[in-house]
Order: sequence, then structure tokens, then C-alpha cells
Amino acid sequence: MGSLKLYPGLGSSNYINDQELVRNASFCRELTPEALENIQQAGKIEYYRRGDAVFRQRDEATHIYLLLQGKVSITTARSSGECTIVEMVPAGKVLLLNSCMLNLPYMVSAEALTDLRVLAIPAPTFIEMLTRHPSLSMVALRQMAYESRLLVDQVRQLKLQTANERLAHYILSRLDRHEGSVITELEDERRVIAQRLGMTPESLSRSIAALKNVGVVFEQRTVRVADAASLRNYCGLELMD
Amino acid sequence: MGSLKLYPGLGSSNYINDQELVRNASFCRELTPEALENIQQAGKIEYYRRGDAVFRQRDEATHIYLLLQGKVSITTARSSGECTIVEMVPAGKVLLLNSCMLNLPYMVSAEALTDLRVLAIPAPTFIEMLTRHPSLSMVALRQMAYESRLLVDQVRQLKLQTANERLAHYILSRLDRHEGSVITELEDERRVIAQRLGMTPESLSRSIAALKNVGVVFEQRTVRVADAASLRNYCGLELMD
Repeated sequence: MGSLKLYPGLGSSNYINDQELVRNASFCRELTPEALENIQQAGKIEYYRRGDAVFRQRDEATHIYLLLQGKVSITTARSSGECTIVEMVPAGKVLLLNSCMLNLPYMVSAEALTDLRVLAIPAPTFIEMLTRHPSLSMVALRQMAYESRLLVDQVRQLKLQTANERLAHYILSRLDRHEGSVITELEDERRVIAQRLGMTPESLSRSIAALKNVGVVFEQRTVRVADAASLRNYCGLELMD
Repeated sequence: MGSLKLYPGLGSSNYINDQELVRNASFCRELTPEALENIQQAGKIEYYRRGDAVFRQRDEATHIYLLLQGKVSITTARSSGECTIVEMVPAGKVLLLNSCMLNLPYMVSAEALTDLRVLAIPAPTFIEMLTRHPSLSMVALRQMAYESRLLVDQVRQLKLQTANERLAHYILSRLDRHEGSVITELEDERRVIAQRLGMTPESLSRSIAALKNVGVVFEQRTVRVADAASLRNYCGLELMD
């Protein structure tokens, strides 16, 4: 187990604490006790600092990573170095299963957006467990289905919406009410939001300015929406369930 | 079983023929004999004409569709009606599992690009079979992993490439050699290619004209590439495995 001194931001690390984090991860909640025990025995706790790479584009997919604490961005780069964020993965989920399932090198990188605690399970062990534990394969299928829906949602946004509409859609998806005047706090930095929406920082600034015309005002991380219903109309695409 | 007269383009339909098509579908090749028999018993053969919808955005996901013959486009539309193609599904695959796995309405539509023959399996039956047949859940996981890779590939292209580069990437992915002078035939109509690449027909025409500068010449459905290696450099992104 990692040393506490090296990772003060990640709370106290001990066996019982780690086991509880695994048990409470959303990925593990519907596992049978046998499958959960198997996962706990097969995995090893690892720590990453903000900015570290958990894996890199073109690496062999040797492990499955269950994200216990922190947040990860899945990134990809042009040969020229220009980089974008494909998706962000919150705690409780397994990082992108597809390369492991197909025994192919990663086509994307995983970068720690915050300090991380993960459970790393060797890929062959995980795949062998899938065939023994139907509860595990059902959970893996549902997580992949959910990820696939998020990716389909992004593809339709990138193909059908302008940059301004994509930013409006992103704001709308973060509101807890879709009528009247609403305020929300953005969790991510503007640099991260721009990469997630497939924009340059400059085009994000232009879109932020443009949304004033539909009653959306940005003040640091606070966003004030004058009328959520008219913002919804502006997007042109319905929010995904 | 459907009437032969109504679907002359789809060959002769009889029980033995249908069973063979199911057995030879790439989705079924690694199933155990028990799982395959279960699929065959649970499914019902259905036919669709070119242009028909197999399912529509917002429909309940009542069935899993195994595509035995033909090709399907997964489409999605803005509230204003503008439509795009998220992905295309060839024969042998199951159409988009994610809505069924999550018991959510379809977020996209499936449209027949050609006449189709499909095996329709009620969703609850299919999900129950997944828990009983590890070979079926492994095949479903691998198909979803493959689809997810294609979607990640699209997201990175849409975020990192210009329209001209996306067309170059699309051509490159269809070549059987990636060096020297190569000729290929495009399977799809230009209207379909434009929607798949997230372009209007007009911007596709502009990109076709622009690619002359990197030695790519379009003549109807034939595409001549003077130097595949320099086309690969032009794309800026590596081809996915």
C-alpha cells in the first residue's frame, strides 16, 4: 500500500479503507459477494498525481483500472502534438474497457485531472473473471453501454451543432432544472472544457461571449442562465436521458 | 417466415437457409452450440426494404436486432430535421446494444441502406440469455468494445481534423495498401459519405476538390490515390488498428 506522506491529498490509506472504497465504487455495487472478493484479491492499489498518465496512447493494455478516487481525462493527440479530450471518467468507473476486451494497444491516453487512487487488475485475470461471474459481465456490459451512449451523444453533437450550440448544450446538461432562471458552478477549468468540446481556448471565449445573447453569463466558474427553456430551444438537440 | 415474392432481392427464404445465416453471422461464430440454439429459438426473422426504419429515435428498445443481410445506417436528427449518420453497421453484427442493456429509449434511429434480413430477439430474453451463457456475454462485450473504439475514433477525428483531413482519413482507411499508388472503389453514395463524415454535400464537394492537391482524384465511385504514404502524412492522425 502507498505511503501516506507521499499522497496527503488522498486521505488515509490502509487495507480496510481501500476495501471499502472498492466495495462502494458504483462499478462494484451490483456484484455478487464472490465476484467482489475476486476483484479485491486480484487488484493492487495504485496512486497517481494530478497530471500523471495512467496509460498512454499505443501502450499495451495490460491492466483494467477501477477509479476509486479522483477524475481522469481520456485524451488523444495529433502527430503534430495538438491534443483533445475524448471524455472524462469520474470515480467509481472502470477506465475504458475496450482495448483490454480486444487485446489491442490503447488508442487514447488517460491523464489524472486530480490526484488518483485506483485498483489495477491484470487484464487476463479480469477477462477470466468475466466468464466465471455473470454479475461482473452484466456490470461491464452496462458500463460499456453507458460509455457508448455518451460517445454517440458526442458524435451527434459534433456533427449537428455549431460550437456555440455545443457550449449551450454542455451548460444545459449541468443544470438541475430546465426551466426559468438557474445558476450553476462549473467543475472543470476552461482549458479542460474547451478540449472536451473540441474547441480552441480562443473559440471557447468567442462562444462564451456569443451566449450573452441567449441570456447566459459566465463569471469565473459561475454560470447564470436567465431562461433555461430558451437555452434548450437554442441547442437544437434534445438532452440525452 | 416472410414471403419470397415480397423480397426477391434477398434470396430464397426458408428455415434451413435462415438458420445457416444466423450460424455464420460474425456475432455468432464464437458462441457455444447451446447459446447458438437459444438465439435461434428466441429470434424471429424480419425483413426491411431499403429506406425502412428498423427502429426510431425515442422508441422503446423492445428487441435486439442481429443483422443477417444488408447494411444499416445509425442516424440522428436535430429538432429542425437536419440529419446525420453516426455510424454504419454491416451484416453479421447486432445493431447498437446500448439502449437494450440500459433499458432506455433509442437515442438514434436505424435505417436500412439496402434491403435487410434480421433476426429480432426480445430484449428481456436476450438479457436473460447473457447471464446464462458466458460465451454470449463475451461476444457482446467484444462487439461493444469494437463499436466503442469506432466511436472514440470518430470523436478524435471530429475534434482534431479539418473536413479535408477527415475525407483523406476516410479514403485512407479504405485502401488495401498504405504505400505508393492505389485505387479503390467507394461502396457508399456521396450523400451517405457526407452524412457519415459530418459534412454537407457542398462541403464534401469542396473537400473532394481540395484533395486534388495531395494527389487524390475522384471519378464517380473510383478514387485514385497517387501516393498513399503522403496521404497518410496529410491526415495528421494515425489510422486506428
